[in-house]
Amino acid sequence: MSNTFGALFRITTWGESHGKAIGVVLDGCPAGLKISEEDVQQELDKRAPGQSEIVSPRKESDKVEILSGIFEGKTTGMPISMIIYNKDADSSKYEKIKHLLRPGHADFTYQVKYGFRDYRGGGRSSARETAARVAAGAVAKKLLSRFNIIITAYVKEIAGIKANKADYKEIYKNNVRCPDKNAARKMEQAILKAKNEGDSVGGVCEVVALNVPAGLGKPIYNKLEADLGTAILGINAVKGVEFGAGFGLAKMKGSVSNDEFIIKNNKIATKTNNHGGILGGISTGMPIVMRAVVKPASSILKKQKTINYRTMKQETISVEGRHDPATIVRFPPIAEAMTAIVIADHMIMAGKISPDKLIK
Amino acid sequence: MSNTFGALFRITTWGESHGKAIGVVLDGCPAGLKISEEDVQQELDKRAPGQSEIVSPRKESDKVEILSGIFEGKTTGMPISMIIYNKDADSSKYEKIKHLLRPGHADFTYQVKYGFRDYRGGGRSSARETAARVAAGAVAKKLLSRFNIIITAYVKEIAGIKANKADYKEIYKNNVRCPDKNAARKMEQAILKAKNEGDSVGGVCEVVALNVPAGLGKPIYNKLEADLGTAILGINAVKGVEFGAGFGLAKMKGSVSNDEFIIKNNKIATKTNNHGGILGGISTGMPIVMRAVVKPASSILKKQKTINYRTMKQETISVEGRHDPATIVRFPPIAEAMTAIVIADHMIMAGKISPDKLIK
Amino acid sequence: MSNTFGALFRITTWGESHGKAIGVVLDGCPAGLKISEEDVQQELDKRAPGQSEIVSPRKESDKVEILSGIFEGKTTGMPISMIIYNKDADSSKYEKIKHLLRPGHADFTYQVKYGFRDYRGGGRSSARETAARVAAGAVAKKLLSRFNIIITAYVKEIAGIKANKADYKEIYKNNVRCPDKNAARKMEQAILKAKNEGDSVGGVCEVVALNVPAGLGKPIYNKLEADLGTAILGINAVKGVEFGAGFGLAKMKGSVSNDEFIIKNNKIATKTNNHGGILGGISTGMPIVMRAVVKPASSILKKQKTINYRTMKQETISVEGRHDPATIVRFPPIAEAMTAIVIADHMIMAGKISPDKLIK
Amino acid sequence: MSNTFGALFRITTWGESHGKAIGVVLDGCPAGLKISEEDVQQELDKRAPGQSEIVSPRKESDKVEILSGIFEGKTTGMPISMIIYNKDADSSKYEKIKHLLRPGHADFTYQVKYGFRDYRGGGRSSARETAARVAAGAVAKKLLSRFNIIITAYVKEIAGIKANKADYKEIYKNNVRCPDKNAARKMEQAILKAKNEGDSVGGVCEVVALNVPAGLGKPIYNKLEADLGTAILGINAVKGVEFGAGFGLAKMKGSVSNDEFIIKNNKIATKTNNHGGILGGISTGMPIVMRAVVKPASSILKKQKTINYRTMKQETISVEGRHDPATIVRFPPIAEAMTAIVIADHMIMAGKISPDKLIK
Repeated sequence: MSNTFGALFRITTWGESHGKAIGVVLDGCPAGLKISEEDVQQELDKRAPGQSEIVSPRKESDKVEILSGIFEGKTTGMPISMIIYNKDADSSKYEKIKHLLRPGHADFTYQVKYGFRDYRGGGRSSARETAARVAAGAVAKKLLSRFNIIITAYVKEIAGIKANKADYKEIYKNNVRCPDKNAARKMEQAILKAKNEGDSVGGVCEVVALNVPAGLGKPIYNKLEADLGTAILGINAVKGVEFGAGFGLAKMKGSVSNDEFIIKNNKIATKTNNHGGILGGISTGMPIVMRAVVKPASSILKKQKTINYRTMKQETISVEGRHDPATIVRFPPIAEAMTAIVIADHMIMAGKISPDKLIK
Repeated sequence: MSNTFGALFRITTWGESHGKAIGVVLDGCPAGLKISEEDVQQELDKRAPGQSEIVSPRKESDKVEILSGIFEGKTTGMPISMIIYNKDADSSKYEKIKHLLRPGHADFTYQVKYGFRDYRGGGRSSARETAARVAAGAVAKKLLSRFNIIITAYVKEIAGIKANKADYKEIYKNNVRCPDKNAARKMEQAILKAKNEGDSVGGVCEVVALNVPAGLGKPIYNKLEADLGTAILGINAVKGVEFGAGFGLAKMKGSVSNDEFIIKNNKIATKTNNHGGILGGISTGMPIVMRAVVKPASSILKKQKTINYRTMKQETISVEGRHDPATIVRFPPIAEAMTAIVIADHMIMAGKISPDKLIK
Repeated sequence: MSNTFGALFRITTWGESHGKAIGVVLDGCPAGLKISEEDVQQELDKRAPGQSEIVSPRKESDKVEILSGIFEGKTTGMPISMIIYNKDADSSKYEKIKHLLRPGHADFTYQVKYGFRDYRGGGRSSARETAARVAAGAVAKKLLSRFNIIITAYVKEIAGIKANKADYKEIYKNNVRCPDKNAARKMEQAILKAKNEGDSVGGVCEVVALNVPAGLGKPIYNKLEADLGTAILGINAVKGVEFGAGFGLAKMKGSVSNDEFIIKNNKIATKTNNHGGILGGISTGMPIVMRAVVKPASSILKKQKTINYRTMKQETISVEGRHDPATIVRFPPIAEAMTAIVIADHMIMAGKISPDKLIK
Repeated sequence: MSNTFGALFRITTWGESHGKAIGVVLDGCPAGLKISEEDVQQELDKRAPGQSEIVSPRKESDKVEILSGIFEGKTTGMPISMIIYNKDADSSKYEKIKHLLRPGHADFTYQVKYGFRDYRGGGRSSARETAARVAAGAVAKKLLSRFNIIITAYVKEIAGIKANKADYKEIYKNNVRCPDKNAARKMEQAILKAKNEGDSVGGVCEVVALNVPAGLGKPIYNKLEADLGTAILGINAVKGVEFGAGFGLAKMKGSVSNDEFIIKNNKIATKTNNHGGILGGISTGMPIVMRAVVKPASSILKKQKTINYRTMKQETISVEGRHDPATIVRFPPIAEAMTAIVIADHMIMAGKISPDKLIK
C-alpha cells in the first residue's frame, strides 16, 4: 500500500524532493510493447517546471533513465524501473523554517505520524513525486494507444474563470493547459496577479478518456468511479472529484439525469452523458468524464500565522523558495497518467489486454 | 477485489436483491469487543425501507443474524459472518422488462460485462447490497466508539434545498435525515412532488467524523481522502465526493484556503477547517468533513425511451416496482458505515487499535 | 488477509467448529459456469466424517446450501456464498479441559494472540473450517474441468507404509484414499493399531494436476510453487511441501536432475519430470506434482503432560471427543480444493480463462 | 504481485542479470531506524560471487547505493530505494545459445509466457535478482535486531553430506556456509569434484529464527508457515520447504510428535520443538526452524540434449559462462533476508512493531 498503486498494472514510486533521485517501478506491463526513453520524456516534459513565468523557476531537466524491463526496444513483461536524478535542489530556504508548520502543507501531519521528517523541499510530500507517476503513465498511455484509447486532461477552471471550449489542440499552446484560448489568457492574468500579491489560486481539471470499451470496472467496491477516484484523490492538493454531471446531479430530476439509451453506429450508446461513461460502476463505452478540484498552492509569500512545533509558540511565516502560484497548471499530465494507469489496469483485469504478452 | 473492501479491517459482501439472502463477512476486528445482534440491528433499522411515504414500500424486516466470530458476547478475532434473509421480494414486475435497459441503471453494463444477469430487482446491482455494509459498519462504529470516535452522516441538500443547521438530534426525527428541521420539511415536500410526477430527485450527503486522532492515512496513494473517497464512490448512485471546502477551493486564494495553525487545549489545531481534517493525506485531528452527491433515483414511473437489447429496437419504459423517489434519504447510514470501516482500518494500520485484541 | 485467499479467484471462509454454521464466499468466478448444489455436495461428501472406523464418528451431514451468485443454474460473476450448518456439535468434552493447552493444538497460540478463544471443538482452528474450502474448491474444479484440467490428490504414505502404485480408480474405494489397494490395507491396519493405543499417525499426500497449460505462474514472488505452497501450508497440520523430486534433489547431480527437453506430440515437453511441472516458477505443461506432509493428529487419548494456563501448573491431559486418528485420510479433498483454487486463479491471471464470462 | 512481496513491510524488486542495474524499493519500514549503506553492504557481501573456487568467478562488487527514505542516518517511513549497478556482465556466451532451451532453467517457460525474453545471463530469472532481496533483508534484520530477533541460515546438507553440528561461528569461516567445520570440508570436496566433472550438486539450507515472540501469524491462510513457505519457495531453485520435524512427521506417532507444554523461565514453552516454533499457524515463542531444498545448479558444462525452439529440432548444449556448481552455498543470506522480511511484516501486522515510527 502507501507507495504502490494498482492491482495488475501497478506502480511503486519512491524518492524525495531534495534527495538523490526519484523513481518508479512499473510492474505488470505485458511483453512486446515498443517504448523508449523518448516516449517517456515527452510526457515528463509536459509537467516539468521552469517553463513560464507562472510556474516554479526550479530548473530540473527531469531526464528519465529506464533501468530495466526493456530489451531490444520492447517491454519484456518484467518490472520497468525508471529513475530521474534531482539536480537543482536548493534546501537552504527550508533550513530556517524547519520547525514552522507551513499552513496547508503536510509538515504537521508527517511530524505527528513519523516523529521525524525530511523537511527539505517538503521531502516526499512534495509534488515532485508526481514526476514518477507521469513516467509510469507514459507507458500506460502508450499501451492504451495500441487499443485506440486516448486520455486527455486540461484545466477547466482557474480562479473562477471557466473554459468554454474544449479545443484539444490549444491545451499545450498556452501556459495554463486550457483548451480555450481566450479563457487561458484570462487565467494566466489571474495567476500573475495572485503571484504578485504573494498569493496563489486553485482550479478544476477535467479528464476525458475516449474509446474506453464498455465493460471495464467491478460492480461493487472497485467501481470504475471508485478506482479512478482514489487515483485522483491520491494526488497532492486534490480535494474533490466528480464524474459526468457530478455535483450538478443534486439539483436534477431523474427524468433529466437518466441518459436515454439509443442505437448509434449499430451499437448501444446513450444520447446524453450525465453518467460520465460509467453506469453501475462499469464503463458504458461513452466518454469517461471526470473533474478534480485542485486547491490553491499552499506555499505563499504572504505572511501567515502558524506554530513552531518545537517551541509550541505562535510565529509568522512567509514561505520562500521556488513555488508554483497555481499548481493546477502542472496537474493535467499527472491526471492523465493516473487515469491511464487505472484504465490500463482495468483493461487487463477485464481480459481486454492480455496480462503477459501483447498479441498482434 | 470487487466484493471485498479494506486492508486490515475488511468486509466481503454477497447476495442479490431477490436471491435467498444477502450477507457480509467482516475480517480483522480485534478480539474482545462486546457486540450483539441488537447493536447491528439498530444500524440496519436506520436504512430499512418501508418507514415513510417517501421511501420504497417494500417490507423487509432486515433481521440480521450473526453466524460466527462472537463467543460469550465478544468478538474472538475470527471472521464475523452476518446474514439477512430476503423476504418480501416480488420479481414479477421485472420479468416483463427484463430485456429493456433501464436508463441510469446497471442493466446495460452488467449485460455487456457478464453476458448474462440476474435481472430480478436489479440483482447484485441493487442498493439492497448496502444493508450488508451497514451491518459491518455497525461493528466498526462500535469499535471506534471505544476510542471516542463518532461518525455522523446526514442529508445536506435535496433538490436544491439546503440544510442551514447541523443539529444532530434532528437527523432521525424527520424522514429525510436532515439536521435542519425547517429544511427537512421543504425537502420532504419536494420529494413528494417529484414522486407524484413519477420522477425522482438527487441530493448531497455530508459525513463528519469527530475525534479522529492525528496521524491516520498514508502519504501517497492511500491518502485518507483517497481511501474515504473510494469507499464513498463505491456506493451506488454516488457521482462525486469532496473534502473540507471541496470544489469551493477552485475559487479561493491560498491565503484564505490555508488553515492557520493554532494552539488549542495545549494541542496543535487549525483555526478554520477548509482542509476537512486531512493534510498531505493524513488526519490532523480536526473534524473530518466529506460530502457526496447522490444522483436522482434511476427507477422512475415517467416514460423514458430506451433500447431492448434482444431486438436492438427502441422501446418506451416505465419502471414500476417499489422504489425510492430519493435514494439520498436512505444514504446516510451507508455513508456512516463505509466511513467507519475506513477509519477503523486506518486506526489499525496506524497502530492505534491493536490488530489482535483490544487492550483495556 | 487471514481468512481470504487468492488474487482474482478468491475465497473468504468463516465459522467455528461448534458455532452455528461455517461457510465461504467465492469471488471472481466468471459468469456462465453451470454449477449446482449437487456438484458441490459431491466434493464435500469426499471429506465428510463418519464414514469408517478410522475417522471421527461425528455425524455431520455437511449439507451445503448456495445462497447467491447462481441464477438459472449458472454463475453470474457475482460472489457465490455457500453455507453449511453445524448440527452434531457436542461441546461438553471441551468444557472440562478448557484451561488445559492441548499439545500440538492451537490452544496456546490463540490464547496468547487473542487473549480469549472459542474453545469448543477448537473453534476456528478446527479442521472443520476446511469443509468451506472444499465447497469453493468444487466450483474451481468444475471451472477447470471446462479446460480439461484435472486435479487428483491421494495418500502416498502413512506411518511409513508407501503406495507403490497410482491407480486413481482405487482412491475412493478404500478408507485411506490410497491409489494402491495393497498399501491401503496395510495403512488401515496401522491406523487402527494406533487408534487402539490411543495414539495417531501422520503421512504424506500427493497432488497431481494434469493438462495445466504452460505459462501459469509469475516469475518472482508468485512463482507457481510459492502460490501452491502457501495454499497447502495454509491447511491445518501440514508441516512441509515439495515439488517434483523435492527433497530428493539434495542428493542429485545437476546432470540427473535437469529434465531434458524433447518434442512430444509436436510440442516441447521434458523427458523426465524432476521439476514437477514448474520451471522458473512457471508451468511447463508437464504434470504438476506436489507432496505435503501431514502431522499425526494432535488429539489423542493417550495421557500427555501439559500446562493449565490459568493456574500455570502442570497437569495431565487425555483428549476425549470424536477425533480422527489419521487426519491425513481426510486430507486429499482439501488438497485438491486448494490446488484447484490456485490453478483457477492463475488461469485467470494468465488470461487463459476470461475473468468476466466464459466464452463458449 | 509478481515482483512485490509482503503486506505491510513490503519489497518490490526489479532488474535483469545483464541489464544496467538491479534494485529494490522497500516500503513500510517505520521511521527512526538507524541504517547505513555499510549495514546493507555487509549483508550483500555475504552472497557476493567471486569469493572462492566453488562459486561463479563473475566479479561484481555489488556496491549498493541508497537513493531515498533515509534522512540524517535514519529511516523516515518513506520508501527506501536501493540500487546496485551491474558491472561485470558478459553476454557473449549467451548469444550463441539464445535459441536453445537450457535444461532446468526458465528459458522455455519465459519464452512461452512472454513470447520474448532477455536471454542475456538469464535476464530476470537469474539468481542475481536475489541481491536486491538481500539488500532489503538487511534493513529487516536491522529492524528485528532492535527487538532482539536473530535470524541465521546455513547449509545443512550438500550432496548427501550432512552437518552434525550447529556452531554458528563457523558458518562464514568456510566457503560452504556450514556450521560444522568437518562437514564443510567434505562438502567443499564434493562440490569441486562435481565442478571438475562439469556437473553440479544440490543441498538443504536450514533457517533458525530466535526470540520471535509468541503470537505472530494469522490463523487461516496467512499461517506463519504459509507466509514463510511462500517466501522461501519464491527463491530460485527451491523445490521444497519444511518446518520443525517436517517430512519426518510422516513416520511419527502423535504421542511423539506432540510437544509437551512446560513452564520455563516463568513462561509457557514446549519441551521439544517438533512443531518448529509454530502451532496453528502462529508462533509459540520457541525457535522457528525451517529447511529448504535447493536443486543442483542447472547450468552445467556437461553435454545435455535439448530443443532449439526456433527450429524445433534436438540439439546438444553445454552451458558455458561463469556459474556456481552449488548455488546452495550462496543461498543462506537470501534465506535470511526473506525470513527477516516475513517476520518484520508479521511483527508489524501483530502490532508488535509500530507501523509508523519506532518508539524508544
